Amino acid sequence: MGDPAGIGPELCLRVMRETDVLDVCTPVVFGDARLLDRVSQILGWPPTESVVRLQDWEGGARSVDGPGIVDCGLIDAATVEKGRVQPACGQAAYGYIEAAIRSALSGRIAAVATAPINKEALKSGGIGYPGHTEIFQALTRSDAVCMMLTSDEITVSMVTTHIGLMEVADHLSVDRVAEVVRLTSDALSVMLGRPSRLAVCGLNPHAGEHGLFGKREEERLIIPGIEQARAQGIEVEGPFPPDSLFVPTYRRRYDAVVCMYHDQGHIPFKMLAFDKGVNITLGSKVIRTSVDHGTAFDIAWTGKADPKSLIQAILWAVKLAAHRH
Amino acid sequence: MGDPAGIGPELCLRVMRETDVLDVCTPVVFGDARLLDRVSQILGWPPTESVVRLQDWEGGARSVDGPGIVDCGLIDAATVEKGRVQPACGQAAYGYIEAAIRSALSGRIAAVATAPINKEALKSGGIGYPGHTEIFQALTRSDAVCMMLTSDEITVSMVTTHIGLMEVADHLSVDRVAEVVRLTSDALSVMLGRPSRLAVCGLNPHAGEHGLFGKREEERLIIPGIEQARAQGIEVEGPFPPDSLFVPTYRRRYDAVVCMYHDQGHIPFKMLAFDKGVNITLGSKVIRTSVDHGTAFDIAWTGKADPKSLIQAILWAVKLAAHRH
Repeated sequence: MGDPAGIGPELCLRVMRETDVLDVCTPVVFGDARLLDRVSQILGWPPTESVVRLQDWEGGARSVDGPGIVDCGLIDAATVEKGRVQPACGQAAYGYIEAAIRSALSGRIAAVATAPINKEALKSGGIGYPGHTEIFQALTRSDAVCMMLTSDEITVSMVTTHIGLMEVADHLSVDRVAEVVRLTSDALSVMLGRPSRLAVCGLNPHAGEHGLFGKREEERLIIPGIEQARAQGIEVEGPFPPDSLFVPTYRRRYDAVVCMYHDQGHIPFKMLAFDKGVNITLGSKVIRTSVDHGTAFDIAWTGKADPKSLIQAILWAVKLAAHRH
Repeated sequence: MGDPAGIGPELCLRVMRETDVLDVCTPVVFGDARLLDRVSQILGWPPTESVVRLQDWEGGARSVDGPGIVDCGLIDAATVEKGRVQPACGQAAYGYIEAAIRSALSGRIAAVATAPINKEALKSGGIGYPGHTEIFQALTRSDAVCMMLTSDEITVSMVTTHIGLMEVADHLSVDRVAEVVRLTSDALSVMLGRPSRLAVCGLNPHAGEHGLFGKREEERLIIPGIEQARAQGIEVEGPFPPDSLFVPTYRRRYDAVVCMYHDQGHIPFKMLAFDKGVNITLGSKVIRTSVDHGTAFDIAWTGKADPKSLIQAILWAVKLAAHRH
């Protein structure tokens, strides 16, 4: 359900009635039933009838009857203020994720599509993870994960994500570059039904221009990482100057671009696929897809939020789950 | 003329015959006449008739008769290999710039539009500057300069440019942010004929998300810089999350985006205006515009290079010169 004070609740209410979703799966919302009821009432939408308490669901005593809510009972619905950072909301949002991951690990659900959480609310609630990707990595005990953003127009994956820009080089290594290339190649090869073709960005302007800018991160870390992946049979080229790689004629030669840091991938992705993209945690033991937008506190509980990205995230989760199972 | 081994020579030969250029100015190429002749012969193009030796030009003994060449005599044309990094080419390219700047400072020419140089050739030739922007700043003794890229679709200016990505924060300061905002505002206000409206990017993912990522560079350096510029009457907002600011609906609210580092501005710019953009050195005492592409060694001396960007650079130089004089 994501952060209760954001647009997550109304998006969940909408997708439970969305034909494209219902045609391919049974959506189950891990959230708080009273909060969802409160938002339904505000918007004049019908209440959700199928509700199961988390302990009954986990004990196996009851399941949902079609699209429904697994009521985690983590927040006092009446005290939530829409559109505000609240510690209790951060804690509840984290609790929904925990519960969904437990259900996925036990095989009750096939995949998890996440609504937006608020990083400040998480932090104020004492949750130490910067985002979903890190939570899924930790709670599913997955060794190697990375974030991929995908859309019809452009696909990018990130070697580093939610860290300060000046810390990026400290988080690069030959093995990590090779790992993200491999995760990206694995996922895309499944989705495309053929070997994928990847390009890798440099870190510095002009990819360092042979050591002129930066500390030869390209030569020391990125090139050996690419060579390691290539030795595993992956079709991958680079490192290329980051500003050339996203020019349409170059970009279209590749199925995806592997980026060194958050904005190197997010800037071009959002330019081309804003609100249409899906965020996928590659390498997680639990299939996890997500919206690629935030909690949009400014329009929370108004019914204005566009469910397109969550719908796409669910459809991707279904496709990935079908392949895995 | 740029690097003799790149596409600079053929671009110069073409613009000397380009009607759009000849309609508004008299182009004078600072380069080597024999090298230009050699390229003309290879391509089967007519030789350039109006040639003046640099010492005669600088002594005032002769001028050019229409579009012509100021022959700097800096390289042995027969020894230049097309498409290769050569120390002598780096030195010659630098010499052409030096000569053009001297002529501009003495009032013989109104502005300088530069063809591409090769940073590796410069370095191998013992030239310590990473690019044109830095050369113009040093040789014109201009206090505060910055790089702006402009096109019909998008305009960006950069607080830092040709340095390693991990060095960016060390080069940010409150005054530098304010300075680049001011230089950008000054140039655009002239060109637009009205006050400009600017947006500023953060440095870290999500513009730091209130200190969650990075070392509060946004709070310590960027916000006070924006406030300083605003106190001078400039309409400027930010810092915004870099990945949101280039989404079309946000970008179009502003005349330009002030970026913290090379690729933050170059990635979106090249995506939208590849080969159509102009690079302008703001704040230089000599008006300087440039192509926004490189030496394209792979197609040098083949006649395939597109002169569009150099033509645009010349037309911008003419407009800026008309305003200044």
